[in-house]
Amino acid sequence: MDDREAMRQALDCAHAVEGRTSPRPPVGAVVVRDNVVVGKGATSPPYGPHAEVHALREAGELARGADLYVTLEPCCVTIHTPPCTQAIIEAGIRRVIMATCDPNPRVCELGIAQLRSAGIEVVVGIEEEEARAIVRPFSTFITRNRPYVTAKWAMTLDGKLAARTGDSYWISGPQARIWVHNLRDRVDAIMVGAGTVRSDDPMLNVRLSAEQQAYARAPRQGPARVVFSTNGDLPINSKLLQPELAAGTYVFVGESCSAERRQRLQACGVELIVLPENAQRELDLQTVLQDLAQRGLMHVLLEGGNRLLGSAFDQGLIDHVAAFIAPKLIGGAAAYTPVGGQGLAAMRDARILEHVHTQIIEGDVLIEGDLPERDDATS
Amino acid sequence: MDDREAMRQALDCAHAVEGRTSPRPPVGAVVVRDNVVVGKGATSPPYGPHAEVHALREAGELARGADLYVTLEPCCVTIHTPPCTQAIIEAGIRRVIMATCDPNPRVCELGIAQLRSAGIEVVVGIEEEEARAIVRPFSTFITRNRPYVTAKWAMTLDGKLAARTGDSYWISGPQARIWVHNLRDRVDAIMVGAGTVRSDDPMLNVRLSAEQQAYARAPRQGPARVVFSTNGDLPINSKLLQPELAAGTYVFVGESCSAERRQRLQACGVELIVLPENAQRELDLQTVLQDLAQRGLMHVLLEGGNRLLGSAFDQGLIDHVAAFIAPKLIGGAAAYTPVGGQGLAAMRDARILEHVHTQIIEGDVLIEGDLPERDDATS
Repeated sequence: MDDREAMRQALDCAHAVEGRTSPRPPVGAVVVRDNVVVGKGATSPPYGPHAEVHALREAGELARGADLYVTLEPCCVTIHTPPCTQAIIEAGIRRVIMATCDPNPRVCELGIAQLRSAGIEVVVGIEEEEARAIVRPFSTFITRNRPYVTAKWAMTLDGKLAARTGDSYWISGPQARIWVHNLRDRVDAIMVGAGTVRSDDPMLNVRLSAEQQAYARAPRQGPARVVFSTNGDLPINSKLLQPELAAGTYVFVGESCSAERRQRLQACGVELIVLPENAQRELDLQTVLQDLAQRGLMHVLLEGGNRLLGSAFDQGLIDHVAAFIAPKLIGGAAAYTPVGGQGLAAMRDARILEHVHTQIIEGDVLIEGDLPERDDATS
Repeated sequence: MDDREAMRQALDCAHAVEGRTSPRPPVGAVVVRDNVVVGKGATSPPYGPHAEVHALREAGELARGADLYVTLEPCCVTIHTPPCTQAIIEAGIRRVIMATCDPNPRVCELGIAQLRSAGIEVVVGIEEEEARAIVRPFSTFITRNRPYVTAKWAMTLDGKLAARTGDSYWISGPQARIWVHNLRDRVDAIMVGAGTVRSDDPMLNVRLSAEQQAYARAPRQGPARVVFSTNGDLPINSKLLQPELAAGTYVFVGESCSAERRQRLQACGVELIVLPENAQRELDLQTVLQDLAQRGLMHVLLEGGNRLLGSAFDQGLIDHVAAFIAPKLIGGAAAYTPVGGQGLAAMRDARILEHVHTQIIEGDVLIEGDLPERDDATS
């Protein structure tokens, strides 16, 4: 077993807890001794032990003289748990191989220094790109004071989010939808605008059979559901407002939402959050995201529609894009495109994705990538 | 050299004359004797010898007892040239391997029958998919009495043909543009709407250095340029209206185009064609395509814009799609999508592409495919 193979196992441990660790990063660790994995671990739900501690516990006395593979630099300070560096030193680990450093600039490389001064050999940078992608939501969360935002959409090859009538069932195929449910399964919240609730009546939950799961993830309550609606005009028979889904659903409205609507929404069982409106007398997405960050949600999936995605794009609030293109045409000058809003005026200023990854899923083309921070956008 | 390798050489011969044979199909042929290619040929410009005849002439006496690989079933009737089947029989060919049958139902398999009755072994179906794709424009041309229409566009990952301001330079990268010029090099005409002339001021010609050419194609005048404009409102300083490009440019206008505009356009040197308008008092794309077919043009490349592509889609006049998706976002509810028009009302009725081929060209994703004929569309 070489470093890369061992690190892949650690990465799998991290993937298995994505969406289950906020506001801590999902981390995976394995202890390897004589080419055999003798301990494995992943970040516990909030305030429980970190990945390294689980892996070391499982290894027990076998950890002495063994190698530890961890997807993120071990913490060296006590926040909710004792520092992992101390546990690693006490366990007698010989060599620590980490995929990437801590994205928190206050902590970065302090863990490495502590380990090295204890005589432990440290290697950094094995499978780093994937490890960085896993930790990116946490990184945005701690540096920008808002959740990491993944924008997801499916469109036709002629750039439409729906037919001119608003009908969008189904643009992409069953395998693409399974992929989306796996994405939902690793975020903290799924957000849509009121228009999407009215036109699509979505459930915004995770619906995956055991075979459809990309990773055997631990059970959880499921991602929070978030509806963005300045005036609170949501059909009372929406699926999201029925008792089972209303619990775990946040509805954000502006101050102009009438008392009657507020009462009606609260009576459904959702958590109603009233926020001040901006100069255009509209609910502000940045304000909503900050509120969600305060609730400890570090990764929000924005599933539409055109208006909310446009607003997020205009404000530089999209961090990652996952776009499906179905090889079909619907036509229509009046049909919506994925990203509305004001938009940029010149093609040369278009925002270019980084770390682009393209794959074909049962005929649908999935293009994913990161949107780098804009120089002019500050949180 | 196996059958597949030999047929690939014949296909390359056919590719090298695409756009240079209308109204005849581009065909390639090679004669192979003792594993060596002893003759090669491709369809001549109109009314010249066919591919088989060139290949047989080059092989000379070596053709006797040799194998002939041809991308399309040899013709068996005299149209402008004597039947190829006769030439093959006279040359003493032992075996004929063809990629696909003649798409003309009146001719299909007659050639095969003639060859077999002369004692020649016939094999059909080697590299058939690619051979069918090469012959598809001809097939549409003879069965539907209009040119084959390839719709090409480049869009952002959020489905925009341009920024809200109309600016579209450049959506895709240099390699994608080279690919498009190679596409232009194999069609008979490039068509745009008047809006595209006003906003993009295109030249609609082929600009490729020798190294950029996908195939060493024979020189030619270049594809015809076609502008679709009901009222003839084109800026007189457009590149297409300058002397060098105006020759070889067709401008189609409706009867409502004023005498003054007609005169002004003709004075530029373009070929002005005035056609009756439809019930909506607009120039009709179907009528324009039929006119182009009568001029012997069998493959038209539709390069936009949104309105003309929408009209083509609504009338079921798009046969093939080549769409580039650049991994960038521009945003904007007011920005155009590639295909405007009326569009379809329900997503389940969206037109699904067949023979879809996806490739990444320097970061841009190219999705190509065929749109099957609609049951309700008749030419």
